[in-house]
Amino acid sequence: MSLLVVGTVAFDAIETPFGKTDKITGGSGNYICQSAGHFTNDMQLVSIIGDDFSQEELQYLQSIGTDIEGIEVKKGEKSFFWSGRYHMDLNRRDTLVTDLNVLANFDPVLPEKYKDAEFLILGNIDPALQAKVITQMVERPKLIAMDTMNFWMDIAMDNLKTTLKMVDLLIVNEEEARQLTNEYSLVRAAAAIREMGPKYLIIKKGEHGALLFHGNRVFFAPALPLEDVFDPTGAGDTFAGGFMGYLAKTKDLSFENMKRAVIYGSAMASYCVEKFGPQRLKELTEQEIEDRVQVFIELVDFDIILQ
Amino acid sequence: MSLLVVGTVAFDAIETPFGKTDKITGGSGNYICQSAGHFTNDMQLVSIIGDDFSQEELQYLQSIGTDIEGIEVKKGEKSFFWSGRYHMDLNRRDTLVTDLNVLANFDPVLPEKYKDAEFLILGNIDPALQAKVITQMVERPKLIAMDTMNFWMDIAMDNLKTTLKMVDLLIVNEEEARQLTNEYSLVRAAAAIREMGPKYLIIKKGEHGALLFHGNRVFFAPALPLEDVFDPTGAGDTFAGGFMGYLAKTKDLSFENMKRAVIYGSAMASYCVEKFGPQRLKELTEQEIEDRVQVFIELVDFDIILQ
Repeated sequence: MSLLVVGTVAFDAIETPFGKTDKITGGSGNYICQSAGHFTNDMQLVSIIGDDFSQEELQYLQSIGTDIEGIEVKKGEKSFFWSGRYHMDLNRRDTLVTDLNVLANFDPVLPEKYKDAEFLILGNIDPALQAKVITQMVERPKLIAMDTMNFWMDIAMDNLKTTLKMVDLLIVNEEEARQLTNEYSLVRAAAAIREMGPKYLIIKKGEHGALLFHGNRVFFAPALPLEDVFDPTGAGDTFAGGFMGYLAKTKDLSFENMKRAVIYGSAMASYCVEKFGPQRLKELTEQEIEDRVQVFIELVDFDIILQ
Repeated sequence: MSLLVVGTVAFDAIETPFGKTDKITGGSGNYICQSAGHFTNDMQLVSIIGDDFSQEELQYLQSIGTDIEGIEVKKGEKSFFWSGRYHMDLNRRDTLVTDLNVLANFDPVLPEKYKDAEFLILGNIDPALQAKVITQMVERPKLIAMDTMNFWMDIAMDNLKTTLKMVDLLIVNEEEARQLTNEYSLVRAAAAIREMGPKYLIIKKGEHGALLFHGNRVFFAPALPLEDVFDPTGAGDTFAGGFMGYLAKTKDLSFENMKRAVIYGSAMASYCVEKFGPQRLKELTEQEIEDRVQVFIELVDFDIILQ
């Protein structure tokens, strides 16, 4: 089934304690598609780039099943560029450069053929634009998921709350869940967020795993204890891409299957951080994905038989 | 089988965002026994108190199967007293008062009948005293576990390293594992700690769960997402007590059974934090423990069948 992805396609320059890159390709939409592409070859990508962006990367996206008609190319302009430096613990980072460039005037217009996509994932962009994408759909997708960040809570909380009413699933990290609700307890935060609209909620806890909430149910997915995290850039988008790709492939929105999707998303993210940028996603084989999922199965496996 | 517990029996005064206590009973040895007592009634406790300590609490410990001959009572002296205030996030606390009192001259001497205990848990005390307890055993216990803290790494690292060579299992939290090894990655820290002596290692991650390491195996136990944590005091000792109590009850030191013990320890800790001090442990029924374990089972349960 078709998966519509809205997000950035951009350049990053990254410094971690382990090394440094020049400008490499990145962006939420790019990571989501490169991850979801391991599960489905029916993707549509809405984004904006300058004419400086890598043709090779665009061709790669097409080769894995991404329709790129929805990527607007601005002649004579530059693609979005972000540069950051990670601290030793890799949980904190300093932004060195944010050049919005073409992103400053992003106004997503969906090609006609995108308007009946069955799954929609809205990467972290201005919530007003996320809402605008949803209103262009001619048919309600089976699942609308969105990412966001504290930045939008600081400057566009009203718009964010409007958009939240329109989606089925919100994917945020712990700090974002707390800031959005002013609740420290994640259980209370989760309840408050679901009051805001989304029936489903995923709270990402980085190296501590992820929580999936729905109704009165909660699922705790572990994160793989890793010897080294090389570059965390894109891990969250890779998680989201694996999650949505798995759902689009299996066409099953039961809670049981969403749990599986969280595990597949976690497996994808655990690979993403092994190399700079989306490089590891490009090399990844289906066998490696299955092998990593097996590690997740064993990681949390225990048998207690209660009376 | 007999479980020998060495640790403090003390008074605490606790402030959390939810309330404040006067002097209430606490101490690592006390929490460990009150937790382990739900699994075994063959415990021996080595500690030191002043004649100000609560007779009622001592009688309670006896009533759940604790031999208290090993608790030295110092006439005319005061029991160890700690007072602290937790921050809003409950992960950080400020120590307001630490009155060592009798603990300043603690020199554990084991009653003869304790010297062939089959399981030994050394609460967080001076590593030189922990070693001294081990050398008094006439027979090597089936499992020697120890807790420690960053304080001993700061002032007694050499002694700590000597004691680590003598034990089978170390139980520490994330920060302690990192400080002990100068490794940020918990996988690397775990490898380094097992080079120091312990074959088994548990790294507690508080609200994020716990990791059990042995050989090339790792088990990730979740923590229950809680609506409210009322008072985290004693949660770590309660975890250790539940873990050791379950092992003493089941007499099975396989990795599979240790995983079960981690889940039971986690269930006990999740109850401990619901009320001030060890109060919740006193009220706890066996049915409640089983119910909580069931919640843990469901929390991480997913089924993926790989090809």
